[in-house]
Amino acid sequence: MSEVAGRLSIQVGAQCLEAKNGGRGILLSGVSGVAPAKVVIIGAGIAGTNACHVAAGIGAHVSILDINPTRLAYVRDIMKGSVTTIMSNHANIEEEILRADLVIGSVLIPGAKAPKLVTRDMVRRMKQGSVIVDIAVDQGGSFETTRPTTHDNPTYIINGVVHYCVANMPGAVPRTSTYALTNSTLSYALAIADQGVEVSMTQNKALKKGLNIYKGKVTLRAVAESFGMDYEEAQF
Amino acid sequence: MSEVAGRLSIQVGAQCLEAKNGGRGILLSGVSGVAPAKVVIIGAGIAGTNACHVAAGIGAHVSILDINPTRLAYVRDIMKGSVTTIMSNHANIEEEILRADLVIGSVLIPGAKAPKLVTRDMVRRMKQGSVIVDIAVDQGGSFETTRPTTHDNPTYIINGVVHYCVANMPGAVPRTSTYALTNSTLSYALAIADQGVEVSMTQNKALKKGLNIYKGKVTLRAVAESFGMDYEEAQF
Amino acid sequence: MSEVAGRLSIQVGAQCLEAKNGGRGILLSGVSGVAPAKVVIIGAGIAGTNACHVAAGIGAHVSILDINPTRLAYVRDIMKGSVTTIMSNHANIEEEILRADLVIGSVLIPGAKAPKLVTRDMVRRMKQGSVIVDIAVDQGGSFETTRPTTHDNPTYIINGVVHYCVANMPGAVPRTSTYALTNSTLSYALAIADQGVEVSMTQNKALKKGLNIYKGKVTLRAVAESFGMDYEEAQF
Amino acid sequence: MSEVAGRLSIQVGAQCLEAKNGGRGILLSGVSGVAPAKVVIIGAGIAGTNACHVAAGIGAHVSILDINPTRLAYVRDIMKGSVTTIMSNHANIEEEILRADLVIGSVLIPGAKAPKLVTRDMVRRMKQGSVIVDIAVDQGGSFETTRPTTHDNPTYIINGVVHYCVANMPGAVPRTSTYALTNSTLSYALAIADQGVEVSMTQNKALKKGLNIYKGKVTLRAVAESFGMDYEEAQF
Amino acid sequence: MSEVAGRLSIQVGAQCLEAKNGGRGILLSGVSGVAPAKVVIIGAGIAGTNACHVAAGIGAHVSILDINPTRLAYVRDIMKGSVTTIMSNHANIEEEILRADLVIGSVLIPGAKAPKLVTRDMVRRMKQGSVIVDIAVDQGGSFETTRPTTHDNPTYIINGVVHYCVANMPGAVPRTSTYALTNSTLSYALAIADQGVEVSMTQNKALKKGLNIYKGKVTLRAVAESFGMDYEEAQF
Amino acid sequence: MSEVAGRLSIQVGAQCLEAKNGGRGILLSGVSGVAPAKVVIIGAGIAGTNACHVAAGIGAHVSILDINPTRLAYVRDIMKGSVTTIMSNHANIEEEILRADLVIGSVLIPGAKAPKLVTRDMVRRMKQGSVIVDIAVDQGGSFETTRPTTHDNPTYIINGVVHYCVANMPGAVPRTSTYALTNSTLSYALAIADQGVEVSMTQNKALKKGLNIYKGKVTLRAVAESFGMDYEEAQF
Repeated sequence: MSEVAGRLSIQVGAQCLEAKNGGRGILLSGVSGVAPAKVVIIGAGIAGTNACHVAAGIGAHVSILDINPTRLAYVRDIMKGSVTTIMSNHANIEEEILRADLVIGSVLIPGAKAPKLVTRDMVRRMKQGSVIVDIAVDQGGSFETTRPTTHDNPTYIINGVVHYCVANMPGAVPRTSTYALTNSTLSYALAIADQGVEVSMTQNKALKKGLNIYKGKVTLRAVAESFGMDYEEAQF
Repeated sequence: MSEVAGRLSIQVGAQCLEAKNGGRGILLSGVSGVAPAKVVIIGAGIAGTNACHVAAGIGAHVSILDINPTRLAYVRDIMKGSVTTIMSNHANIEEEILRADLVIGSVLIPGAKAPKLVTRDMVRRMKQGSVIVDIAVDQGGSFETTRPTTHDNPTYIINGVVHYCVANMPGAVPRTSTYALTNSTLSYALAIADQGVEVSMTQNKALKKGLNIYKGKVTLRAVAESFGMDYEEAQF
Repeated sequence: MSEVAGRLSIQVGAQCLEAKNGGRGILLSGVSGVAPAKVVIIGAGIAGTNACHVAAGIGAHVSILDINPTRLAYVRDIMKGSVTTIMSNHANIEEEILRADLVIGSVLIPGAKAPKLVTRDMVRRMKQGSVIVDIAVDQGGSFETTRPTTHDNPTYIINGVVHYCVANMPGAVPRTSTYALTNSTLSYALAIADQGVEVSMTQNKALKKGLNIYKGKVTLRAVAESFGMDYEEAQF
Repeated sequence: MSEVAGRLSIQVGAQCLEAKNGGRGILLSGVSGVAPAKVVIIGAGIAGTNACHVAAGIGAHVSILDINPTRLAYVRDIMKGSVTTIMSNHANIEEEILRADLVIGSVLIPGAKAPKLVTRDMVRRMKQGSVIVDIAVDQGGSFETTRPTTHDNPTYIINGVVHYCVANMPGAVPRTSTYALTNSTLSYALAIADQGVEVSMTQNKALKKGLNIYKGKVTLRAVAESFGMDYEEAQF
Repeated sequence: MSEVAGRLSIQVGAQCLEAKNGGRGILLSGVSGVAPAKVVIIGAGIAGTNACHVAAGIGAHVSILDINPTRLAYVRDIMKGSVTTIMSNHANIEEEILRADLVIGSVLIPGAKAPKLVTRDMVRRMKQGSVIVDIAVDQGGSFETTRPTTHDNPTYIINGVVHYCVANMPGAVPRTSTYALTNSTLSYALAIADQGVEVSMTQNKALKKGLNIYKGKVTLRAVAESFGMDYEEAQF
Repeated sequence: MSEVAGRLSIQVGAQCLEAKNGGRGILLSGVSGVAPAKVVIIGAGIAGTNACHVAAGIGAHVSILDINPTRLAYVRDIMKGSVTTIMSNHANIEEEILRADLVIGSVLIPGAKAPKLVTRDMVRRMKQGSVIVDIAVDQGGSFETTRPTTHDNPTYIINGVVHYCVANMPGAVPRTSTYALTNSTLSYALAIADQGVEVSMTQNKALKKGLNIYKGKVTLRAVAESFGMDYEEAQF
């Protein structure tokens, strides 16, 4: 689903940049003779890389930040000169977002709260009519100013910056999302159906890694910590 | 402004494909493992070619139709295998749009009414939830089912097909559009300011070509014919 | 050798599509104004990915199917929008091959029989003059209708579908194949020459993995199972 | 039809390079670790440029020669660094073809005999097993050693060099060729059907340019000169 | 020779950016995690477009300015999103060069003095250690601060900005330049040798356009005006 | 720093090819109608792959050699047909460098001496005015003819071949290099500052791997062997 959210984030961001939605009234791609928008993507994981493909494909100026040098090198290998890879740290994030038209927050740490990388003060100094899309909002979000919204009322404006923070972004394109989800999960479902929960969990590490709660106990450490609950390893 | 409208058409089309807007609920780009949407662009002029760049850049399946083989060859030269160029005729248009998720109508003939290339019957047989964006709507439109809409209420649905037919599409991104328009027109404005209307019209063929009305007479033949008015060549 | 076979498969497939060979009489790349052929590649391993590079490079429409989402994401990363990645399952295979002009079967499981992914019934419903190239034919093939052929008599036709199933495809381009094979194997040959069989096998895991028979015993489990023979781990 | 012939020329050339057809036994694209074939295209017109797209798309080393610097600059613009453009002259042609694995002759001058750019002596010094495809063979050919062949018996070998010189190359892919031909000619046919020969010829310059014979007279100068016949301008 | 100068300008500019030459000590391409240099090219003619290909190919951020919208659209068509095209005017030039690391001046008007597009004041406000390469210097240059230099002593520094203004840039790569020059001029030389000056000038418009002086008179208007001399049309 | 050195190597190599520096006087990229230079890169590690990106981006002919087939396949995947990957062995190295205009030596084995892959005799037979850049020179170099030079006096000529062997190449672009180095090392510095040497070394494998000397003992085996000193594993 990270792929769906990542690709969709550019599409909804482009839409938020339209004047009627409170945005700067600019076209993501620019036209010949007029510069394109500047897109800043924080996090080069699956969601961020997919956002990167779409934004660069459209013709925007794209910067992508991450703390993992190997990942940045891979993104550079596949995208060549069409995007700028930047080491993620406080100074670089600040420098980039103050010049951005569209900022995508795509830092997702499985099961854990997303770190707050962009402060309220930075947002205050962003350009009027710029746009934030926070893919990580259902895990707390990467921005101090983001809070979950819904497809019915997807955006709000703080200090002139449009915030799009729909908690279930892939729900906008249910057909694509359903196929994507089924692709990822069908093999697990079949394993459980064939072998039962206990056996399949024992034999399939990836499946066990995804177990959140078992017999009333939280069995995923990150989840337990996020909610201040007790963690207990699952025993079959 | 054709560049703005062309590039914007894919962005608004993507948006119309979202489920909440009546579309098929699919993501234009697809994701790995799930096929992208099929985009059909009728007309490979400036608007159509710009739509083509954006749609192919996002990763959609793109077909572009035109009646001019030289133009199709140029589009193929610059886009390589990433789009399919198809000779435009009744049979090919029909075959393409029945499989399309998004159809862009971009046939603009300066000053003249756009030809009706897509019949009401064809639209009736299109896929449920597919989308039509008619860039030529302010010249009558290329579809029998299109009629002008506004940014406040941009779409309507006929036979399950979402129609986006905003007459002034570039108005959605006023900042980009203003720069683009200024780029194209500033040199004309300067010429008129420097030399006056008569001299500048006499010395500058392109400027004279754009003269619609002069001293109460319609001086552009295509406009006169479209409105059933008398045409008279401008005399300075 | 999988690279050679994969790249060659598109070349021979293009040739089979010529009318005189029983094919549909279409050009893989299309021309401007005429759509290219649709190529479906089953399996995104080394052979399939190489086929993918050539087919997309020529300008064909390419779909590639695999059961491994990570591999599909990698193919999408490097090929961008120029190919469609699709999760491999019975329904998707059927949908794709019924619209295909050229189908490449490239599912190779080292030492084991290739799974029969395409049934006789699906082949019966394929387009007249479409083409199947089965790279996995020397391991039984991925199609119920394939059986090994030779370079002298490389194709046969079933239900109007041209089958190319040469068991030793790389033999068509012996100069390239010899270099490729030497590149992959020379270091193993040198290790055996330097250290003798026993020592080199002990020190070099990859080498030992390739041992099929040792002192009269089948020492590769997949081979033993395929032929119904006893398996015994090699002891040095 | 030049597009079809150009694109097809690489496909048949690849095939001629297979060992069983007398070629060098190399794969046009190479594989990782083994260099690809060297393709030399003489003539950067429509046929040559299309050959160029396919050969470069497959991954071969491509040089393309022409006497027109503007055309070479355009080819470089669209192909970037993936092909080498070279000014066509005797010395450059010789240097290139002596290192070539596949030479495409695509110099077509409408109605006139193709110039003999490659001498018998140059062919004698080409690599054993290299391949010549002469697209211009039905106008005499660009090589001293080429003479028309047929689809039934498409090649012959001189001094170890495989010659493919089918006079009607597009006939190999009749479906694609028919569509391509119809795309180019349908508008002319409709004009003649609507207005009759005389009126349509008078009103349509392109149509008149294509008139070869009228009322028993050769009305195209180049054709008349090629066949040593009298030329007479058509009068309607 | 404009192609040579254009492509070379990026190479020498990269070199001037090295710290020991007075530049900012940055690598044109950047590396993964560190942003590339910003290159601004003024003029999208042959020299500018070639500079653009090299700079974008290396992976720099490239903006290219021109006053011709059709040319900008062509550059965008072939370069896609990898460069930013900007309408050239005083405001845009100023905005761009103040953020530039490397500025290429490539505005060449045949025979006439290059317009001074960049003022001394703008140069004063450029970044310390940034670089200017003025391809048009032998026609007066596009910058108020440029004056011709030589290969022996190619650069000087004004207000911390490195200026490279070698009047005969292609002389740095004589082998490439000689071939390029011969490609462009050989056909003219042959025409003069075959037909004599007068006949060849009469029959060949392009040749006559290049005539600067004939029988002691300046026969090219732009040259005459630049040097304040009398102009006289050549009579044969 | 390997990325910086790799990318810089092409830039300095291009410069050495200028006539005034003793080079062949050719432009790396060529121009339309004139072939580009041939660049041979020995080693497809990080430095070599980065050199490859720049050289191919400029439009040179690029061959890259390595002994690791998986690495070559990856380079081919990301570079497609724009570079030639070749298995590294004595014969292939010799064949390639004798035709090269620019050779980049980028074989770096952490801590160990670079192997001498190019003999003095091979260099003697290289083209007059060709260029060698040895990135590995501070570890002894990959060429028998290379010895360390400095930024003040970066090149020397042997047998007509220009040698660029600056031991500290990244020093040419200190700004980029400092950022790149900080990106790679800051996390280690923070770990040491937070936890002290002993704890951080114990908890962080990568950090311990980088420990060269501890309490007067050489703790990295490769370094010890290179200098003929005793090796002792670090104990905390």
